[in-house]
Amino acid sequence: MSYFRKHLDLIAGYQPGEQPQDGQYIKLNTNENPYPPSPLVVETLMENLRRHRLSYYPSPLCDELREQASTVYGYPSSWILVGNGSDELLSIVFRAFLGNGDRVLYPYPTYTLYRVLALLQEAIYEEIPFEKDYSIPEKILTDQAQLKVICNPNSPTGTFIPTPIIENLLKNSCCPVVVDEAYVDFAYDNALSLLKRYPQLIILRTLSKSFSLAGIRVGFLIAQPEMIQGLLKMKDSYNVNWFSQKAATAALQDLPYMKNNVEKIKQTRQEFSQAMTKLGYEVLPSEANFVMVRKPGEGLKSEYLYLKKNWILVRYFPEWPDSLRISIGTDSNMQFLIHVLKNINKDHKDDL
Amino acid sequence: MSYFRKHLDLIAGYQPGEQPQDGQYIKLNTNENPYPPSPLVVETLMENLRRHRLSYYPSPLCDELREQASTVYGYPSSWILVGNGSDELLSIVFRAFLGNGDRVLYPYPTYTLYRVLALLQEAIYEEIPFEKDYSIPEKILTDQAQLKVICNPNSPTGTFIPTPIIENLLKNSCCPVVVDEAYVDFAYDNALSLLKRYPQLIILRTLSKSFSLAGIRVGFLIAQPEMIQGLLKMKDSYNVNWFSQKAATAALQDLPYMKNNVEKIKQTRQEFSQAMTKLGYEVLPSEANFVMVRKPGEGLKSEYLYLKKNWILVRYFPEWPDSLRISIGTDSNMQFLIHVLKNINKDHKDDL
Repeated sequence: MSYFRKHLDLIAGYQPGEQPQDGQYIKLNTNENPYPPSPLVVETLMENLRRHRLSYYPSPLCDELREQASTVYGYPSSWILVGNGSDELLSIVFRAFLGNGDRVLYPYPTYTLYRVLALLQEAIYEEIPFEKDYSIPEKILTDQAQLKVICNPNSPTGTFIPTPIIENLLKNSCCPVVVDEAYVDFAYDNALSLLKRYPQLIILRTLSKSFSLAGIRVGFLIAQPEMIQGLLKMKDSYNVNWFSQKAATAALQDLPYMKNNVEKIKQTRQEFSQAMTKLGYEVLPSEANFVMVRKPGEGLKSEYLYLKKNWILVRYFPEWPDSLRISIGTDSNMQFLIHVLKNINKDHKDDL
Repeated sequence: MSYFRKHLDLIAGYQPGEQPQDGQYIKLNTNENPYPPSPLVVETLMENLRRHRLSYYPSPLCDELREQASTVYGYPSSWILVGNGSDELLSIVFRAFLGNGDRVLYPYPTYTLYRVLALLQEAIYEEIPFEKDYSIPEKILTDQAQLKVICNPNSPTGTFIPTPIIENLLKNSCCPVVVDEAYVDFAYDNALSLLKRYPQLIILRTLSKSFSLAGIRVGFLIAQPEMIQGLLKMKDSYNVNWFSQKAATAALQDLPYMKNNVEKIKQTRQEFSQAMTKLGYEVLPSEANFVMVRKPGEGLKSEYLYLKKNWILVRYFPEWPDSLRISIGTDSNMQFLIHVLKNINKDHKDDL
């Protein structure tokens, strides 16, 4: 006998990428940043750690951090909700708009957490395949639903939908539209400018990627104040701990540091994409800190396993067996990966 | 027009106690610990901060912390789920067992978050008044529901239900039963020993109270492994950040420090309770790190405001206007509070 609500027994939870904690692997599987966060983060924590009263609850709305985020994103604090990672913010959004039988639409393939969050709400998810050129599917523009989600740049493809198309989507949608911009600092544009005109627009940001702070779990939801007020009802009172509030505030004070790392990663992305193309892979054009490489019709599981045996972790999704998603590490990380992949090709040839 | 699910428009979120961040108040309103956490916490963080790669995701299941918690609570890691504070764990539990129209039972008055979490799930909450002596209401024992919750020691009353009565409740209940033991380190007993025999039992613990770590947001849910496996589906992948995992592990390594603080607080609680009785208040017998003081039939809002004017924050719940919940601070905190209250009595007399 199960104690759980019936629909829960039928679903599996989200499976995050492997997170070995011993630091032996070159981790290119969960889109972390190969560079450390701004030195200001550790300095600020060192300075404050002995002074702060850890025995007291943190600021429920992250007042200081919201102020800092406000200067970065260009909207007042009342437009910003801070989350324990943007995963928590996604969970809040799905719970706020989707109940039993409600519909959520998003292009496919994308972040598989959306499906899990829909299932947890007993909602119906419609995964609309991207057009062949990874542009937005017509059905997403025209169909009505209770929620639409666009991961932009998209994971795992790395592809980007231009802002005018996002605006077109908003013009055609009465329901809340989430634009999950986890990777947008690596792209050439973003949707922030649309917020003023579209009360149903919800933009998500995270410090996990461009700011090199996956370890602290801080994400932002930016939307009009009325939207924020409604979503706040779902939020745990003290959802962001003191450390993370402090670390995030410091990181946002050092934008040039982040932007410099982003430029390095974009350069590496370009060189790596060229090298993988030379190796015979189809490489999707990426605006993120990862690339999806494909051998359409072939299985790439053996490549994934071979890389892992050589202490390189990349992301293999059983759902898309002819593809690998590879995070952009340092230049030497990527050169080593290419070197190892060349050997697997050699081994395979020797087998013949 | 609202974008939100209909039931959400009708409810208010949970209102946490005031959290001024400037440190000027004597904070006796949210049951924080007046003593700092074990020095081992800050030492461990200082040692690890420069070495750790904050750019990487933390352990999804808090492996190292679960191991340490396992030695403290006496159950294997597979019996333990770590949460971003026990508020997150409560939210997970309510979402796992309650849907539209399902029933949750709990004694009243208690932690008002339970009501909000039930409303968010469109569930029906039945708040069964405690017996006059604050023992468990008969109806909680006998009625069937989808979920029962016992805050033990209870907030805001501080009263405690003995373990054999909790066992009696479990014998009579087919549904999951949450025993929220946030304050149990200040009590003479706890329900951990019942876990082996009752697969529906869920025990919650937190580091926010006895371990002086409200700032780091770490709670534990302890239950049989099958229960843990089901609840994991609801959990965000990386719900506890790296800092908090590290700080919590260190705190659990220094139990004698925590126990020493608990003894001091219990001593202060006893002295404060006697002094308040002398001042003419009814003081409920407390097994927690706070006491509820009452003047049945009178309003205590003016006392709350007068204390606040004198830089002492206590908790006034508009729902229970003849009561105040006062956290136990240091001896001198409590002596100052008594001193201030004596003045309000004097002022009032002068008014006559």
